[in-house]
Amino acid sequence: MEVGFLGLGIMGKAMAVNLLRNGFKVTVWNRTLSRCEELVEQGASMGSTPAEVVKKCKYIIAMLSDPPAALSVVFGKDGVLEQMCTGKGYIDMSTVDTVTSTKISEAIIEKGGRFLEAPVSGSKKPAEDGQLIILAAGDKSLYDEVMPSFDVMGKKAFFLGEVGNGAKMKLVVNMIMGSMITAFSEGLALADKSGLSQTTLLDVLELGAIANPMFKLKGPAMIQEKFPTAFPLKHQQKDMRLALALGDEVEVSMPVAAAANEAFKKGISLGLSDQDFSAVYQVVKESSAASKV
Amino acid sequence: MEVGFLGLGIMGKAMAVNLLRNGFKVTVWNRTLSRCEELVEQGASMGSTPAEVVKKCKYIIAMLSDPPAALSVVFGKDGVLEQMCTGKGYIDMSTVDTVTSTKISEAIIEKGGRFLEAPVSGSKKPAEDGQLIILAAGDKSLYDEVMPSFDVMGKKAFFLGEVGNGAKMKLVVNMIMGSMITAFSEGLALADKSGLSQTTLLDVLELGAIANPMFKLKGPAMIQEKFPTAFPLKHQQKDMRLALALGDEVEVSMPVAAAANEAFKKGISLGLSDQDFSAVYQVVKESSAASKV
Amino acid sequence: MEVGFLGLGIMGKAMAVNLLRNGFKVTVWNRTLSRCEELVEQGASMGSTPAEVVKKCKYIIAMLSDPPAALSVVFGKDGVLEQMCTGKGYIDMSTVDTVTSTKISEAIIEKGGRFLEAPVSGSKKPAEDGQLIILAAGDKSLYDEVMPSFDVMGKKAFFLGEVGNGAKMKLVVNMIMGSMITAFSEGLALADKSGLSQTTLLDVLELGAIANPMFKLKGPAMIQEKFPTAFPLKHQQKDMRLALALGDEVEVSMPVAAAANEAFKKGISLGLSDQDFSAVYQVVKESSAASKV
Amino acid sequence: MEVGFLGLGIMGKAMAVNLLRNGFKVTVWNRTLSRCEELVEQGASMGSTPAEVVKKCKYIIAMLSDPPAALSVVFGKDGVLEQMCTGKGYIDMSTVDTVTSTKISEAIIEKGGRFLEAPVSGSKKPAEDGQLIILAAGDKSLYDEVMPSFDVMGKKAFFLGEVGNGAKMKLVVNMIMGSMITAFSEGLALADKSGLSQTTLLDVLELGAIANPMFKLKGPAMIQEKFPTAFPLKHQQKDMRLALALGDEVEVSMPVAAAANEAFKKGISLGLSDQDFSAVYQVVKESSAASKV
Repeated sequence: MEVGFLGLGIMGKAMAVNLLRNGFKVTVWNRTLSRCEELVEQGASMGSTPAEVVKKCKYIIAMLSDPPAALSVVFGKDGVLEQMCTGKGYIDMSTVDTVTSTKISEAIIEKGGRFLEAPVSGSKKPAEDGQLIILAAGDKSLYDEVMPSFDVMGKKAFFLGEVGNGAKMKLVVNMIMGSMITAFSEGLALADKSGLSQTTLLDVLELGAIANPMFKLKGPAMIQEKFPTAFPLKHQQKDMRLALALGDEVEVSMPVAAAANEAFKKGISLGLSDQDFSAVYQVVKESSAASKV
Repeated sequence: MEVGFLGLGIMGKAMAVNLLRNGFKVTVWNRTLSRCEELVEQGASMGSTPAEVVKKCKYIIAMLSDPPAALSVVFGKDGVLEQMCTGKGYIDMSTVDTVTSTKISEAIIEKGGRFLEAPVSGSKKPAEDGQLIILAAGDKSLYDEVMPSFDVMGKKAFFLGEVGNGAKMKLVVNMIMGSMITAFSEGLALADKSGLSQTTLLDVLELGAIANPMFKLKGPAMIQEKFPTAFPLKHQQKDMRLALALGDEVEVSMPVAAAANEAFKKGISLGLSDQDFSAVYQVVKESSAASKV
Repeated sequence: MEVGFLGLGIMGKAMAVNLLRNGFKVTVWNRTLSRCEELVEQGASMGSTPAEVVKKCKYIIAMLSDPPAALSVVFGKDGVLEQMCTGKGYIDMSTVDTVTSTKISEAIIEKGGRFLEAPVSGSKKPAEDGQLIILAAGDKSLYDEVMPSFDVMGKKAFFLGEVGNGAKMKLVVNMIMGSMITAFSEGLALADKSGLSQTTLLDVLELGAIANPMFKLKGPAMIQEKFPTAFPLKHQQKDMRLALALGDEVEVSMPVAAAANEAFKKGISLGLSDQDFSAVYQVVKESSAASKV
Repeated sequence: MEVGFLGLGIMGKAMAVNLLRNGFKVTVWNRTLSRCEELVEQGASMGSTPAEVVKKCKYIIAMLSDPPAALSVVFGKDGVLEQMCTGKGYIDMSTVDTVTSTKISEAIIEKGGRFLEAPVSGSKKPAEDGQLIILAAGDKSLYDEVMPSFDVMGKKAFFLGEVGNGAKMKLVVNMIMGSMITAFSEGLALADKSGLSQTTLLDVLELGAIANPMFKLKGPAMIQEKFPTAFPLKHQQKDMRLALALGDEVEVSMPVAAAANEAFKKGISLGLSDQDFSAVYQVVKESSAASKV
């Protein structure tokens, strides 16, 4: 199977490598073309512009860093739209908002192409291991046709219906995650102040009904007040805000998420924006102003 | 090893059976003595009063239903205290509050005995399978001596220090659990109202960093609005309240737990007290008054 | 002093009448021109388009219903901009968002005019009585020049600095108000369920440090579960949301406002959108689902 | 009219002086007897023990500092009970919990006496000015008989039914007050960070529907981050906690009060316990940890 691949950042490169290793013919493009070299060494072809990649390939996968990049690759000079036409499929795996996704979708379809949004859950390691979770939405026939590529890049793909649902599903999951890490932080702080060992709490949790990879992975660092950034607190707060806004729209009252969101906002005001979202523990624990008042 | 066992309710019986099956000599007692028969058939001896069991055994395990029962077995006529003396050890595995636990501890020690509180995490099935988590606190030498029995009844035992710490650890864990189930309920409601499949949300969660047995076990029933009672909502709310009270005492502010607690309180006012604590989903989802206003 | 007046809705008409009665020469315009007649009978002149009013008057006051109306009067055919020029001042007293206000401001200034946003606090009765509170921001010289008109329409005007500050001040005030009415509702519900007389609670509150016109005005109706609409719940919720969004922007964590906002959102899901915002009492009190579960 | 008066602290002394000035014959007692002298100079008689005062007077008013003091004066040696008998009435105006109040009530009634709990709303200044609000509950005939004394000490007395209702009413009022001051703090912080003048916000609030003496009195100090203690934050938090516990009992969910309570708890952990409860503003505003992380 032959695919085009636009965007070779940390995630994109890992995904493209997996495709190559599994026998796909891949034509890559990246804004900084030199990043293509490593892939070419592993057997990829290279396109000098997005348009060139689209011209050559029936299926084009994009993995761009943010909405402006996603838009520019499609609408810019030598962009995707210039060669988009009937018979081609465009799969945007970047994490973008619904508005961006819809705008790209409409433009692709107007040119006769098919569109799939397919944001992923998982970061660098799962990308390298082909263990991403793929949240796809849009054209079902395109989804079915490119499933072999999803099988290579992810451990599981979901088809969620109309464009926008991929982004929404990600928000729901991240909202639950944000409330959980805050509840976990409250528990860690309560254990500590109550004279219980936090390490023992982690052990007890690990054996029980609420054991989960996140507590296991982040807990030991959190109790040392270390928050190496996997997912920045400011992004977690943004997702909480967007999930609450979605709740506004569809009339769901979510007081626990709202309380967690305010904790993340406090984290931002305390200067924790760029630390891992588990740094919300610092917000819960914090009592440093005591001496100043 | 020989042990006395007081209390043959659902949990106690399963635990005593496990001891018997693993070669322990067990002398049982239960308020309704007829419940002892099944155990006697499996090789247990029987005592006609708690005092008689204590007289006969060096180690006595109690698994009573609530604080009044735990107190009555110790302080009542023909109770534990009447035969308690130097050289004996009393292990109370009932779930009781710190005050009750401390009162029993002091009385046992005054008589020359040793005391261990050892509430468990896990319900009927783990009790039968010898897979309980045991949160012990009190006399460390006693803990070490009775470890063989804990090995049989539980998959893991923790020694948590002074009497009271077992109960506190349980509160911390249950508080995190209560916030999590409420956050999960908010996510389920948000997914539903946003036009996403709740079943797919469960599948996505199951594959990700926050996958946990509770979501997996309860999720499918919750989306059908079924809440078969494993742990009643009113008990979950009580534990949230006690955890918040502990936070009051030790000066930890816990806004997410407080928000979840108010959701459980609303659940009680909506008549959900005796349903499973996952019925908090009903509180989040609920919008039935619309037609009445 | 001579002023133009655009928009004769409930508020605008009352304000224009006050200007006439206090000796101002007023040229009025309204989209439905027939609404001008009553003012003309009281001595006003009439313009057939916004442009005509601007051409004739040095100072033009606008009181339009919403952002689209405010924009259309300025940018539309025969609109304000067509005659705006150096020497003229435009005072928009409509309640609009910062983006709308800024857009109008820039257009007016580009034409050489001066601009003032001046949303008001207070509804029909204060408008009729000339007792509005005016939250002005923008051109200070214009503010000073039109102060005589503010003296007639309001009991107090504030100059708040740059354009946008008027809208922000309104949000802050409404946010405090929204949290207060929710706290008040919780108190009323608690009194009732605790066996205290709600009427007595109102009397006690009225005499103490937190006595305020809102509790006094709305309390007696609320305890009868009547919520005649002065300010719709959905608008209160919108203002809470916007205030929280402002808090997001400027990094202020506001857990009480967030909890109140979720109560208003629950109110919307319960069908209370168009009732008075005091209907949040219904949300707090509500326990009707009990029988259904 | 002749009354006994037990307890001459700041409040009690002011109240007793008012009684004397208005023609009451007053027999005073205080644990530190020397505090009686000033009252004796103003015409009071003095009793050397509570029992002596009860023996001499038909009506005895108590204004003690806390539950232990209230209990000791009644049950202690030479205490109230020793001379309590049919025909006498005991009015406890101290602020005590329901349990204490009920215990005293039962003991008085058993001796044949009548009992009224009558906690007050208001502090030193209203006590001196005879402007307290009196929240009475218990024996209605006694309430009616001692009304002349309430008229002198307070601006308004309420009879609230059975013993315990006085304390409950105080909790409800203080709970609303605590949520309001927190909402107010959030508004002040939001104004400040949004570039609005806090002083202007106070002015705007003062003119509107939510104007109240508390905002007016405390606002100017709060924006200077001064919190002279009128009602300590730790007492406010205690009342929030007790009000939430009452809500637990009677099944009222109060998420706004719960969020405010957590803010006060954070205040305690920040070392603000003994400052005025308006110091919760410090909690909302606080962002000092930034530099430390």
